[in-house]
Amino acid sequence: MEKMKAIAIVSGGLDSVAMSYVLASEGYEIVLISFNYGQRHSKELDYAALCAGHLKSEHHIVDVRALTNLMNTSSLTSNSIEVPDGHYAEETMKQTVVPNRNAIMINVATALAVSKEISVVATGVHGGDHFIYPDCRPKFIDSQLETLKIANDGFIATDFQLLTPFIHKSKADIVSAGELVGVPWNQTWSCYRGGEIHCGSCGTCFERREAFEIAGVYDPTHYASTPTFVDPR
Amino acid sequence: MEKMKAIAIVSGGLDSVAMSYVLASEGYEIVLISFNYGQRHSKELDYAALCAGHLKSEHHIVDVRALTNLMNTSSLTSNSIEVPDGHYAEETMKQTVVPNRNAIMINVATALAVSKEISVVATGVHGGDHFIYPDCRPKFIDSQLETLKIANDGFIATDFQLLTPFIHKSKADIVSAGELVGVPWNQTWSCYRGGEIHCGSCGTCFERREAFEIAGVYDPTHYASTPTFVDPR
Repeated sequence: MEKMKAIAIVSGGLDSVAMSYVLASEGYEIVLISFNYGQRHSKELDYAALCAGHLKSEHHIVDVRALTNLMNTSSLTSNSIEVPDGHYAEETMKQTVVPNRNAIMINVATALAVSKEISVVATGVHGGDHFIYPDCRPKFIDSQLETLKIANDGFIATDFQLLTPFIHKSKADIVSAGELVGVPWNQTWSCYRGGEIHCGSCGTCFERREAFEIAGVYDPTHYASTPTFVDPR
Repeated sequence: MEKMKAIAIVSGGLDSVAMSYVLASEGYEIVLISFNYGQRHSKELDYAALCAGHLKSEHHIVDVRALTNLMNTSSLTSNSIEVPDGHYAEETMKQTVVPNRNAIMINVATALAVSKEISVVATGVHGGDHFIYPDCRPKFIDSQLETLKIANDGFIATDFQLLTPFIHKSKADIVSAGELVGVPWNQTWSCYRGGEIHCGSCGTCFERREAFEIAGVYDPTHYASTPTFVDPR
């Protein structure tokens, strides 16, 4: 039987790399798509490429730096705005969001899916407790799927789906799921800063540490520092 | 009173340039956004820039050639596939569609709108009789608007709207509307071929001629040839 194909949106972060390994273990033939939107660090994309290599997957890196040059408020892509320390909190996180980014990536991945006649686009979005990411909610995925089907009616597979295996999972759940299928965690990147190793103190580093701790999985990550703040919750 | 702002998606074609002039005449301050997806001819983008100049508008040209490099089935962007002659018909048109293109442009324009706190994104899509463009239907626009509001909840203007002034209009209606507000038609581009002047025989040239004829508006376009085919309808 021919393998079911899926286009996986992979940043090189913990969630999307884990998703790729999980889907591959379920028998999917994965086509990886990554977006270069001018991240501060290139490690993330390097790790996406390593993931593709391990899974023997086709890998497309799409240069969308022109899109983010349009915007000028995101600390993910601008070196002039400081990355906030500490746990995710609404105010500090808002400045790290590139507007409408998940939707743009899903729309581009779907264009590729239509072009290649592939009926699954997968994304590692997950809800966790981060309500400030409106485009990580099931409500968004459902609405986006409906819009994509309407926009591409007659061209898109009738059974097209947006696969979001982690949408109801916490990051700790993702670590547990990934550990079962042998994700090489030290080949995933979370830190928002552009250092040689994970800084250990930004919001994503905090979240990464915490996920391994809760999951009870050994965290092989080298962190530059241990967190010095107190969780405000 | 401060002018209402709108981001206008402008290709440099007849529809989008006419829309910009119409919106400007209605009092909107327009920010133009154009997409360089590797069109065969650069005239289209040049005409978008001329439009921005005339309207004294900010103009962003976003290089998305990386996106279309991903695809390899479109005669709009590939020199290896012949452009079909004649009137639009389902089979010949299918090969000129870049998958999900309107959705991608609308999603990027909306990212810019969120970033600039602008509450209107305008697109010149129109239905006409071209049922094979599923992403030109009101049903698509309604669904896309809903998805954008969900995806950007908390960041996007609560009164955000996708403005589609021509969605229920024919191309002849657009010519009539544009003529009223002085659109310089010879600074709009329709031809799918990459020639110095409009070829006169591709589907879009046919449609352009026909629109002026039906509207009873003088067509200043220089065409390389007159059509030699018979409308199959």
